[in-house]
Amino acid sequence: MKRWILMTAWLVALGPATPGGAEEPAAKAPLTTAEVLAASQPSDWRPLAPENTLYVELPAGRVVIELAPAFAPLHVANVVTLAGERYFDGIPIVRSQDNYVVQWADPDGESPEKAKPLGSAKPRLQAELDRPAAGLPFTALPDGDVYAPEVGLSDGFPVGRDPARGRAWLTHCYGMVGAGRGEAADSGNGAELYVVVGHAPRHLDRNVTLLGRVVRGVELLSTLPRGTGPLGFYEEVAERLPLAGVRLASTVPASERTELEVLRTDTATFTAYVESRRFRRESWFLDPAGHVELCNVAIPARERKSAPENG
Amino acid sequence: MKRWILMTAWLVALGPATPGGAEEPAAKAPLTTAEVLAASQPSDWRPLAPENTLYVELPAGRVVIELAPAFAPLHVANVVTLAGERYFDGIPIVRSQDNYVVQWADPDGESPEKAKPLGSAKPRLQAELDRPAAGLPFTALPDGDVYAPEVGLSDGFPVGRDPARGRAWLTHCYGMVGAGRGEAADSGNGAELYVVVGHAPRHLDRNVTLLGRVVRGVELLSTLPRGTGPLGFYEEVAERLPLAGVRLASTVPASERTELEVLRTDTATFTAYVESRRFRRESWFLDPAGHVELCNVAIPARERKSAPENG
Repeated sequence: MKRWILMTAWLVALGPATPGGAEEPAAKAPLTTAEVLAASQPSDWRPLAPENTLYVELPAGRVVIELAPAFAPLHVANVVTLAGERYFDGIPIVRSQDNYVVQWADPDGESPEKAKPLGSAKPRLQAELDRPAAGLPFTALPDGDVYAPEVGLSDGFPVGRDPARGRAWLTHCYGMVGAGRGEAADSGNGAELYVVVGHAPRHLDRNVTLLGRVVRGVELLSTLPRGTGPLGFYEEVAERLPLAGVRLASTVPASERTELEVLRTDTATFTAYVESRRFRRESWFLDPAGHVELCNVAIPARERKSAPENG
Repeated sequence: MKRWILMTAWLVALGPATPGGAEEPAAKAPLTTAEVLAASQPSDWRPLAPENTLYVELPAGRVVIELAPAFAPLHVANVVTLAGERYFDGIPIVRSQDNYVVQWADPDGESPEKAKPLGSAKPRLQAELDRPAAGLPFTALPDGDVYAPEVGLSDGFPVGRDPARGRAWLTHCYGMVGAGRGEAADSGNGAELYVVVGHAPRHLDRNVTLLGRVVRGVELLSTLPRGTGPLGFYEEVAERLPLAGVRLASTVPASERTELEVLRTDTATFTAYVESRRFRRESWFLDPAGHVELCNVAIPARERKSAPENG
């Protein structure tokens, strides 16, 4: 069967790349994405830091989330506390809304008598909706954005930026992880987390705290049966899938970790990668597009090639 | 549990709206999406035409696709021929790629001896990548786009438009349906169809023929297990889900049809609806956003309120 439509960068990155092949780094001639990645050097990749990586264990496998303390330090700290005290173990996925989000939460979270205790974690946190742009790594994308004055990547995270206000914020792209909240801005705490599994709901930007992104395993969430209640909530208790466990990678024995590295977003290789997404050079394309939108710049990730001991 | 993140227009439209409630159409005060839809009149809605609606039957239910002959007349005619001759019945879903597409195809389609015969349908069609903008209904969106000079809605379909060239084209939003092709521009024929089940892969616009969009049931496709082969192809034959049947609605007995209507996109109500998506008035929002991107304007659909006999 030869009628396909083209692969995403994600698969290019994870699939078997041309081994060796890199004669020169990022050449001047237009390159395909596969060529850019094949020519990348070890220094173009950044390992996920175990103290900043969350493992969400499901019966079908592991979801790997990179946390974003640069944007949501309070929420990340609370999530780390909750994970460390094993709060999330057994917490069920209560919601799966098509083209939107999957979310886990204590179904009794609003009942003072029945709610699972939060332990040392804080029950309410001020929303962390944006931060100063100053001091933040930022690789700007050149093609504009419908929602933000500027957009780009910051240490692998998709970011909006407003130079007039000097602020920057994480954006709701596919796979981003946020902390659900109620009506009050300070009613979230990280105990309920959602993952974007549809077209980027960018209208949520700066309305709710984002604190990380799924680097691997998002398909374990995106394929969950949709809830048939309003907002995709499951109507039957039996439909809820309990999380088998949520742990910070640094608390997991090294032999049980998923050692991943992601393409750095502050290198010449990343610039070449973005160009390869803006102008598609693969022979299948009739029109190379000439633009790329923030949430279409999937950040390549792969198994670490060297063992952590050697890294 | 009160910590949620907000509902999509889709659910607002399909859920129980405020009954009756419409005192005046689209008032001048800012309205929420729910208010706009509650105030809509029957004339704001357009039933799907049975001769232009495809039912894809899966074991778990029916996917309803509205065809787009205004954009892809050759491909739509071929798909109608194939459906009429029951070509698709038993054709399997061969590919499910996360955040990208689900696709069905004859796995032996490239083998002259083993391929399922196409019957009266044409084996190759010139790609239908764009069309003259003249004569096309077009409700422009005001917030720009990363890929196209202009974007808007045309009879419910998301469209890009280039006034300088006088051309218009369908865009790859979530739920859009296209015809896979190989390297040659004329190598598609509609026998292999894909459905977008992820963040809009807009770089595919004008590279491959789009011919319709899913109006209901996309979750039956988006939740299919992902294929583990390259590009999300299933590696085992047993993983492939055969389509139970694909029929044009007009060939299905009236009693077995799914009678849907969609919000017209050329009315004052639709303009108010778009404003309600640009500026979120629901009390949960801290920042109303103030913009909306083409693929975030989900077109509301609902069961027809009046029986077709009375419509």
